[in-house]
Amino acid sequence: MSWWQESIPQPCKQSEALAQRRQGQLTKPAGSLGRLESLAIQFAAWQGAELPSLQKVAIRVFAGDHGVVAEGVSAYPQAVTVEMIRNFARGGAAIAVLAREQGADFAVINLGTVVEVGDYPAVVELRLAPGTANFCREPAMDDATLNAALAAGAAQVNEGCQLFIGGEMGIGNTTAAAALVSVLLDIGPDLSVGRGTGVDDAGLLQKRQVVERALALHLPFCDSPLETLRRLGGLEIAALTGAYIAAAQRGIPAVVDGYICGAAALVACRLNPAVRDWLLFSHRSAEPGHRHVLMALEAEPLLDFGLRLGEGSGAALCLPLLRAACSLHRDMATFAEAGVSGPEQG
Amino acid sequence: MSWWQESIPQPCKQSEALAQRRQGQLTKPAGSLGRLESLAIQFAAWQGAELPSLQKVAIRVFAGDHGVVAEGVSAYPQAVTVEMIRNFARGGAAIAVLAREQGADFAVINLGTVVEVGDYPAVVELRLAPGTANFCREPAMDDATLNAALAAGAAQVNEGCQLFIGGEMGIGNTTAAAALVSVLLDIGPDLSVGRGTGVDDAGLLQKRQVVERALALHLPFCDSPLETLRRLGGLEIAALTGAYIAAAQRGIPAVVDGYICGAAALVACRLNPAVRDWLLFSHRSAEPGHRHVLMALEAEPLLDFGLRLGEGSGAALCLPLLRAACSLHRDMATFAEAGVSGPEQG
Repeated sequence: MSWWQESIPQPCKQSEALAQRRQGQLTKPAGSLGRLESLAIQFAAWQGAELPSLQKVAIRVFAGDHGVVAEGVSAYPQAVTVEMIRNFARGGAAIAVLAREQGADFAVINLGTVVEVGDYPAVVELRLAPGTANFCREPAMDDATLNAALAAGAAQVNEGCQLFIGGEMGIGNTTAAAALVSVLLDIGPDLSVGRGTGVDDAGLLQKRQVVERALALHLPFCDSPLETLRRLGGLEIAALTGAYIAAAQRGIPAVVDGYICGAAALVACRLNPAVRDWLLFSHRSAEPGHRHVLMALEAEPLLDFGLRLGEGSGAALCLPLLRAACSLHRDMATFAEAGVSGPEQG
Repeated sequence: MSWWQESIPQPCKQSEALAQRRQGQLTKPAGSLGRLESLAIQFAAWQGAELPSLQKVAIRVFAGDHGVVAEGVSAYPQAVTVEMIRNFARGGAAIAVLAREQGADFAVINLGTVVEVGDYPAVVELRLAPGTANFCREPAMDDATLNAALAAGAAQVNEGCQLFIGGEMGIGNTTAAAALVSVLLDIGPDLSVGRGTGVDDAGLLQKRQVVERALALHLPFCDSPLETLRRLGGLEIAALTGAYIAAAQRGIPAVVDGYICGAAALVACRLNPAVRDWLLFSHRSAEPGHRHVLMALEAEPLLDFGLRLGEGSGAALCLPLLRAACSLHRDMATFAEAGVSGPEQG
């Protein structure tokens, strides 16, 4: 049995019941805090504590290059992957700003860019390969690289953390995500491929044709989620997959960002279905294929802000909402404590 | 001319243009931060500054009792209005928890409860009247009380504040809001009346019949938004109306909470249409009539969390999202600063 198939704990039913009861005692009409109530109860179940807290949050951005950019699938040159890793490290990228503002532990893991990033304290330079191979011609990765990327993701999930937020950077990775989603959900590139960073109409057509060609080449051999990930995925997508599985195995919930993270979460749930119990979906991406991933995972995201940046930015944006849910649950007075009357008897 | 008709400044077009240009220079694909980009640009226009900030935020909860509770329209006894004011003051209510967590300036204004609240530092005890009159029998307020409530709301908006969040507390006030909305939007109680704090099916029917009776009595005389507010509103709803107008006149944006605040915002926009330029709508309430208010004001709220608590809680919940929008806008690096390549030429 591979490590990713190993067992995943169930969220704690007893803490869930205690939190549910507490919600009914707080000074508000029952159910009136809507989603904030179910979030607090969910975190109670995840943390095995009636009064959950979200102090220790880890944000890990996984990065890698994609051979498929040779087919002209992105509006940006491949060099941007490395340039953006440096921008993460220097604090100028969106996810770095959000991580700093919210006091989250932040690091970037370079799974494999074509060129070196250089030396930055916030960057873990793994470079398992100089990017993936072009999956229009051959599988994106070999077995050893896939296994290393999965393990590298898993290694980033620390036992002490209360919430894991994964992000990604890799020019070309919406194309890889679309190919994965097409295979795993059995939908065509017309539904799985979007504009990514912003290709024009001709670029969108090109991107769809590239995914068509990749599917024609690999689909006959995609007999498992793992093989699909190896042939059509990315280094950072594999690392995210490993991280989501490891987080669930260690009893740590993860907030899933947009389309690429969603594709990784889909692979993770196919490899080990109990992962789903430990995932929270942050937002509905503007990337059109994302809705299919959300439907397949029966996920109702928290925000619908038209985000399509990636990096984990949408997931990090939800953190204050999750903290508010926990604070209200912990700090609101009960009817008894506050001397407030309950509902009148009918 | 009454004070509420006096002129309202236009948001600053020049700062809006500068902020728009800056968004195009930040290290992300153009438009990829979706709603966060438009929020940052909107705050730039409101603050007349390319780089807006949200340090000084005021939360004011307006409270008052409603004579119409004599008709059995609420699941909770009238005493809860005063009990909850004390709960706000002691920090145990949802809005107090959120205000504390987010470092907002917080106060409760008692416009008029049936009994006294007592002495609490966070409570401004005005008590213009011992609640409103039962609008099934007579107008809720006389002219002098209405004017005093409007002015009391306006007086709570301080020049130095960067964002105003209004909230409300008053057992029975979803009934008043529904009556106002029915008149102002010309819709029946079947669309404007919901379960409020949680009445059962019989209670919902009763509440609709109460609003029917109130409309039969007052509709012939509701020849202006002000007269509608006087006859069917509440002291806290009038104060909110005054606060929204005064905030706009002073160039301070306001975040509108749910159904009751939405009804007050609707009255404010009818009294002075330029108020609309200074309002941001926080969430879509579970109270069914709220959607009609949002449509009438062409508002697209930020959150859809099934909230129906009031107090300003949904508006306060949005504050970290607004702050994130401003932080990203201010702190992200530009392409030039970060040495990141832009899109490739087509």
